[in-house]
Amino acid sequence: MKLYVVGLGPGDQADMTVRALGALAESELIVGYEGYIRLIQDRFPGKQFLSTPMRQEVDRCRTALQEAASGKTVSMVCSGDAGIYGMAGLLYQLAEEYPPVWIQVIPGITAACSGAALLGAPLANDFVTISLSDLLTPWETIERRLRAAAAGDFCLAIYNPASHGRPDTLQRACDILLETYSPKTPAGVVQNVGRDGEGYLVMTLEELREFPADMLTTAFVGNSTTQIIAGRMVTPRGYQRA
Amino acid sequence: MKLYVVGLGPGDQADMTVRALGALAESELIVGYEGYIRLIQDRFPGKQFLSTPMRQEVDRCRTALQEAASGKTVSMVCSGDAGIYGMAGLLYQLAEEYPPVWIQVIPGITAACSGAALLGAPLANDFVTISLSDLLTPWETIERRLRAAAAGDFCLAIYNPASHGRPDTLQRACDILLETYSPKTPAGVVQNVGRDGEGYLVMTLEELREFPADMLTTAFVGNSTTQIIAGRMVTPRGYQRA
Repeated sequence: MKLYVVGLGPGDQADMTVRALGALAESELIVGYEGYIRLIQDRFPGKQFLSTPMRQEVDRCRTALQEAASGKTVSMVCSGDAGIYGMAGLLYQLAEEYPPVWIQVIPGITAACSGAALLGAPLANDFVTISLSDLLTPWETIERRLRAAAAGDFCLAIYNPASHGRPDTLQRACDILLETYSPKTPAGVVQNVGRDGEGYLVMTLEELREFPADMLTTAFVGNSTTQIIAGRMVTPRGYQRA
Repeated sequence: MKLYVVGLGPGDQADMTVRALGALAESELIVGYEGYIRLIQDRFPGKQFLSTPMRQEVDRCRTALQEAASGKTVSMVCSGDAGIYGMAGLLYQLAEEYPPVWIQVIPGITAACSGAALLGAPLANDFVTISLSDLLTPWETIERRLRAAAAGDFCLAIYNPASHGRPDTLQRACDILLETYSPKTPAGVVQNVGRDGEGYLVMTLEELREFPADMLTTAFVGNSTTQIIAGRMVTPRGYQRA
């Protein structure tokens, strides 16, 4: 009857919350994308796991809801946070067809936070979180949002900057930001946070435009106040002004 | 020599990560705003604690850096995340004066994530995080950013919506959003997340305008696609379209 939607954080179990670990321990069945199940499987021996490939989000959510409706305690796992580009929204949309299921969302460390922590403090003031995946949002909407972010002098955390099927979306996004932002605006990328090959790179917006991002990259762009201090990307907040 | 900047999450120790708990256990000295020290003090008996009142951020950071420079392992604690409206930025700015200190930022669950988890899934698509505190950002910049957020049809997580000294900032922010967004746009508030008196309320943008927010409130505004489903605020992401 109970369905936890659990944010796993970036990938390392050390970045999971106590509450997330407790929900998984309490669950009889853990459902998720196969890449995320792999991250936790060995910590919970004896649990039932059910993994599905990418892009089968609706099926995955229906399975979790059906199993919970049949009386099981189920966890649906998401990387990062459960709500930010996670499965919580879709589960609430579908849950009306499975009335007895009680949903609890358990937040996790989203890539904006885990990536920023590696880069320094790029999001220490107002920022925008935007995904460049045009599979789920029309590209015209993405362009409009990038222009709006620049008009507001926001810092940006850019999710899903590029993939095999759309190798140039980060470049196109940078071109839009460069209509407003200086080419020397501090920028950065993180890759494989909390996993083998973890790394970060501080650069400029014009360099970010040339960066070969992949699905495990999160990109960051500063605003007009962002500085590079000792190799880190830092957006001041004005404490020294107050 | 080591300074951890630790995000405590919303307030309940269950929402801390394993890594954050480990950093505090490893530290000889834990520094922070007195309200945050109170949240963790009883879990770490025998530690040295140093708390300062609000608005003394620069002094608090200098103390932490000095103690770390003198050879101690120190944690600076922040509520929510360590970087998002946290102390990580200011510490990097000041750290150049304390060269031997090695800073590590340990992310935590920020209010956008913990609040969204209570309300449903209001931030399941692109969103803006904005603070209404005009102590640290000029109000004209805040207004410009609110207009930009509305121009991009972004969802919003609004930090520091009001305080004793500025009781009307949430109202003024809603008025700006209402220039573009429908008065019936789903909105919500959370209060005292992870603490006594935790609660959430789903409403409309015109109702949010009248809401008596305080310092322990985080406000959320949906975009043109956000729905209220079974009393929760849900922004679809397009999985059913893909």
